[in-house]
Amino acid sequence: MSFLATPQSMTFEAPLPLQSGASIRDYTLAYETYGTLNAERSNAVLICHALNASHHVAGVYEGQPRSEGWWDNMIGPGKSVDTDRYFVIGVNNLGSCFGSTGPMHVNPDTGRVYGADFPVVTVEDWVNAQARLLDALGIRQLAAVMGGSLGGMQALSWTLQYPDRMRHAVVVASAPNLNAENIAFNEVARRAIVTDPDFHGGHFYEHNVVPKRGLRIARMIGHITYLSDDVMNEKFGRELREAVADSATGYRYSTQDVEFQIESYLRYQGDKFSEYFDANTYLLITRALDYFDPARAHGGHLSAALAQAQCRFLLVSFSTDWRFSPERSREIVKGLLDNRRDVSYAEIDAPHGHDAFLLEDPRYLDVVRAYFNHKVPA
Amino acid sequence: MSFLATPQSMTFEAPLPLQSGASIRDYTLAYETYGTLNAERSNAVLICHALNASHHVAGVYEGQPRSEGWWDNMIGPGKSVDTDRYFVIGVNNLGSCFGSTGPMHVNPDTGRVYGADFPVVTVEDWVNAQARLLDALGIRQLAAVMGGSLGGMQALSWTLQYPDRMRHAVVVASAPNLNAENIAFNEVARRAIVTDPDFHGGHFYEHNVVPKRGLRIARMIGHITYLSDDVMNEKFGRELREAVADSATGYRYSTQDVEFQIESYLRYQGDKFSEYFDANTYLLITRALDYFDPARAHGGHLSAALAQAQCRFLLVSFSTDWRFSPERSREIVKGLLDNRRDVSYAEIDAPHGHDAFLLEDPRYLDVVRAYFNHKVPA
Repeated sequence: MSFLATPQSMTFEAPLPLQSGASIRDYTLAYETYGTLNAERSNAVLICHALNASHHVAGVYEGQPRSEGWWDNMIGPGKSVDTDRYFVIGVNNLGSCFGSTGPMHVNPDTGRVYGADFPVVTVEDWVNAQARLLDALGIRQLAAVMGGSLGGMQALSWTLQYPDRMRHAVVVASAPNLNAENIAFNEVARRAIVTDPDFHGGHFYEHNVVPKRGLRIARMIGHITYLSDDVMNEKFGRELREAVADSATGYRYSTQDVEFQIESYLRYQGDKFSEYFDANTYLLITRALDYFDPARAHGGHLSAALAQAQCRFLLVSFSTDWRFSPERSREIVKGLLDNRRDVSYAEIDAPHGHDAFLLEDPRYLDVVRAYFNHKVPA
Repeated sequence: MSFLATPQSMTFEAPLPLQSGASIRDYTLAYETYGTLNAERSNAVLICHALNASHHVAGVYEGQPRSEGWWDNMIGPGKSVDTDRYFVIGVNNLGSCFGSTGPMHVNPDTGRVYGADFPVVTVEDWVNAQARLLDALGIRQLAAVMGGSLGGMQALSWTLQYPDRMRHAVVVASAPNLNAENIAFNEVARRAIVTDPDFHGGHFYEHNVVPKRGLRIARMIGHITYLSDDVMNEKFGRELREAVADSATGYRYSTQDVEFQIESYLRYQGDKFSEYFDANTYLLITRALDYFDPARAHGGHLSAALAQAQCRFLLVSFSTDWRFSPERSREIVKGLLDNRRDVSYAEIDAPHGHDAFLLEDPRYLDVVRAYFNHKVPA
């Protein structure tokens, strides 16, 4: 069992200007910290989360032995990011459904639940909100900012928005922007949610319903893109959930019943997700992914965008990740090298696809451990 | 403009036993023929269709100049499959929504529209139905059976079910079965349709509605898997449909409006498809794909299954097809070579992904032309 974690929260009254031109005020950020901030306030590591995650990065909650944080294999006493050395901060992003202010909360301007009126938030907005939290915690410069997938985009954006506020950035299984196929998958998932009759234009809370059909489809699509072809074939292949005994093929010949194990797995994942994830949050987070594109303001030149960055970098990618392929990480590496930045890059030969960044893989965890041990003074 | 095509149909009274144990009677097959059957009845080429296609393989309908058949670039006078030499037959499969008996027709046993009660049909069932049509046309042996994608599966199955009824098989962009990821995408599409409240358990005709939401999602998912990453980036990239003039990024910052060109394209494709495709047909055809697996009856040994085949083969795959990758075609090639069959195999370096099998690609069309010219006597 892991160490005990305690969620905290902080409320910010002053309006936060957003990239869209809107702003948000009187909002709360949920966060957790692990380890101890040293006297020099120099050993803080900020962890940024991806789509389906939160401030609960490591440890377990009291009385809930199976409540490990989403990066508990990475972060903790003696782990790759060693909380005996570092003061680790996990923060839940604005618009999430796990504790920070989001679409299911009340809009102070109207007294009504935000719903679909929650302002569109971007990676840059999240970073600005995180910076305010660090200000309040009295942390001027991070030892490192770190994240995987969408979290990696936030880590990268930190280095461009606040180049002097971190000494290192660790960007795992990420990309400098979404490509057309990534956006396409997000869009299908969003359409499934938005066209669910229970979505009610994003104001489903008032109708006491949840667009579960749409959320299920969204999650099923997501799961396919998180896994590699190989690992799907190895885990599920063409295995039937339950072969029919008196059939030559074992098939039950039905268009709607579960026939294959992979169908059963996806339906289960979809059902589970639809029980706890907020539909408006899904729209917001996938849009933040779509919009992230630091090169955009530089005529599409990533190297020009990355000239802002001053810190040192570790990038990690996974060989079978077809969502954010190694090629996408290499684009970032190249852009940083074009600017003569100090970059370490590890391409991990892992079978699990995009999911690998969350999994127990000794080579991966060792690379991160070595980087922190040898390059990141506390 | 292409030559004129005329749809025909033939009704079969005798029950056709299906693989599921059910049977279907008094059914009609829509078909078209191009060219002339020679006196020896030896120059017939049967074309099998994939998911969203029909018996209208080539030519145009009178007065409809833009009504080219789906393989009109491949088949016609002087084309790769030359209708001046061959008698080409296109046939619409059972369960389709383009002319042959399908879920929107009346079940003679009940007097009611089949709907979701249309029996599950397999690739093997389709081949059996096609064989009956050939019997009726007086064709004992085909010069060739040919198809792409799901059509390629039918061509392959022909060689196993009726090994002496063809001299050649041309199997394009196909696979010996679906892998877990292929089944997963089918299942998400089916769930989108089945959970659409307008589906009414497959009996939506009686309610005068169509589960368009589900069909749209299904088609959007399909389209993503038909295109390669590269061609999507080239055609759409991150281009906005209409950049906002007074925004630094050009973004409109909306979770529900169309922002990117790729979104606009997918929504358009989804809308169009939902206007004409039948939801029950979608379920039936994707299930036929899932079920196809000739190795299954041979303990998973493809080579053992392919020992049945007697004819000569041309296999074609496309380098960027990630739905049915070249690797899947090579499995078939290997299985045939294990049985010392005569196999030609071309892996076409094409950027378009799975869709390439329908497109104008000189190298591809030339390979098929050369095969027919040099190896397939009429």
